[in-house]
Amino acid sequence: MKIAVLGTGTVGVAIATKLVSLGHQVMMGSRTGRNDKAAGWAATTGNGASSGTFGEAIRFGELIFNAVLGEVAIEVLGSAGTEALEGKIIVDISNPLDFSKGMPPSNFVGNTDSLGEMIQRTFPNTKVVKSLNTVAAPVMVNPSLISGDHDIFVCGNDSAAKVEVTRILTDWFGWKSVVDLGDVTASRVTEAWVLFWVRIMMITGSPMHNLKIVR
Amino acid sequence: MKIAVLGTGTVGVAIATKLVSLGHQVMMGSRTGRNDKAAGWAATTGNGASSGTFGEAIRFGELIFNAVLGEVAIEVLGSAGTEALEGKIIVDISNPLDFSKGMPPSNFVGNTDSLGEMIQRTFPNTKVVKSLNTVAAPVMVNPSLISGDHDIFVCGNDSAAKVEVTRILTDWFGWKSVVDLGDVTASRVTEAWVLFWVRIMMITGSPMHNLKIVR
Repeated sequence: MKIAVLGTGTVGVAIATKLVSLGHQVMMGSRTGRNDKAAGWAATTGNGASSGTFGEAIRFGELIFNAVLGEVAIEVLGSAGTEALEGKIIVDISNPLDFSKGMPPSNFVGNTDSLGEMIQRTFPNTKVVKSLNTVAAPVMVNPSLISGDHDIFVCGNDSAAKVEVTRILTDWFGWKSVVDLGDVTASRVTEAWVLFWVRIMMITGSPMHNLKIVR
Repeated sequence: MKIAVLGTGTVGVAIATKLVSLGHQVMMGSRTGRNDKAAGWAATTGNGASSGTFGEAIRFGELIFNAVLGEVAIEVLGSAGTEALEGKIIVDISNPLDFSKGMPPSNFVGNTDSLGEMIQRTFPNTKVVKSLNTVAAPVMVNPSLISGDHDIFVCGNDSAAKVEVTRILTDWFGWKSVVDLGDVTASRVTEAWVLFWVRIMMITGSPMHNLKIVR
């Protein structure tokens, strides 16, 4: 499958590398295209890995993983025009984190709105599925790095898209428990959870943790 | 021990009843004192149970459980004057829920502030320990209602007060895992969690769930 991964940070690299290892053609998108981390990643990752501008990656991908900083997500997703996104699933991993006041961060949107909703509103002809934003990058594609049962979440307005993303999470990434939280407004609670996650990281000194809903 | 429980809802009743069963003297506080649910509770609960106005209960208690609606918490806690609260531990169970737009609720404060912080700021000579606000009332005093391991949280600025409340949670209420999230600003994340908790309740149809930090 042709897949776009937007972003060259630890999340983008983890997702893109995993997808290539599964045999997919992956274009990593970045602001400058071929003169930066994306090009280095493509050169060292080999068969199936390529790099391009955000716009090139969006046009290339049948499926899009959004792994850029929350503050630029809407601008980046719009960089190839809305037609290039038409009908596509956007797996939105971005978080609306605001580090301007240091640690711990706050969110620049929340409570009655969310970044997931902002993206879905801005690009109404896409299928936004918010997921993976609640764990550290290595855990996203290798949940067994944390022992025991723990959960990953999906939410979005398109049921078929959620089924497709759930299949990716289980069959490709190895998640055993995927909880469907409902429509895209549930992004409010998973994005807010990240601030809880940061507090846990601050007291344990490690990002290798996740939550489990016990019932 | 003389304990005030402010609030006559399911949370107040669960906490007050448990405390009486442990042999404590508990005054349940309410707006009107003796003409409402608090008086009924005191009459049927027996030895150690009494009722009074919010102010009477605050003066009575060496320890205070705040179980009123978030929107009235500051007014209620102030109803006996600040001297009556001087030096006391307030176990703050209240949540800043706003149901004015129906389900799911939002919070009337969050992200860069919290109800726990508002209470601590308003009553600086008290020791606010935010806790128990993340689970359903029956689970607060009987965590084994949910099988398996799951966590309860404390946060607050006074370390000795957190130790005291942690002892109450473990020795009195039966919690096996109490996670100290740090100072009272961590109320932001436990109060925000409640909105996540509501989403889980909406999809499972049951309030009998809690979270476990897996690491």
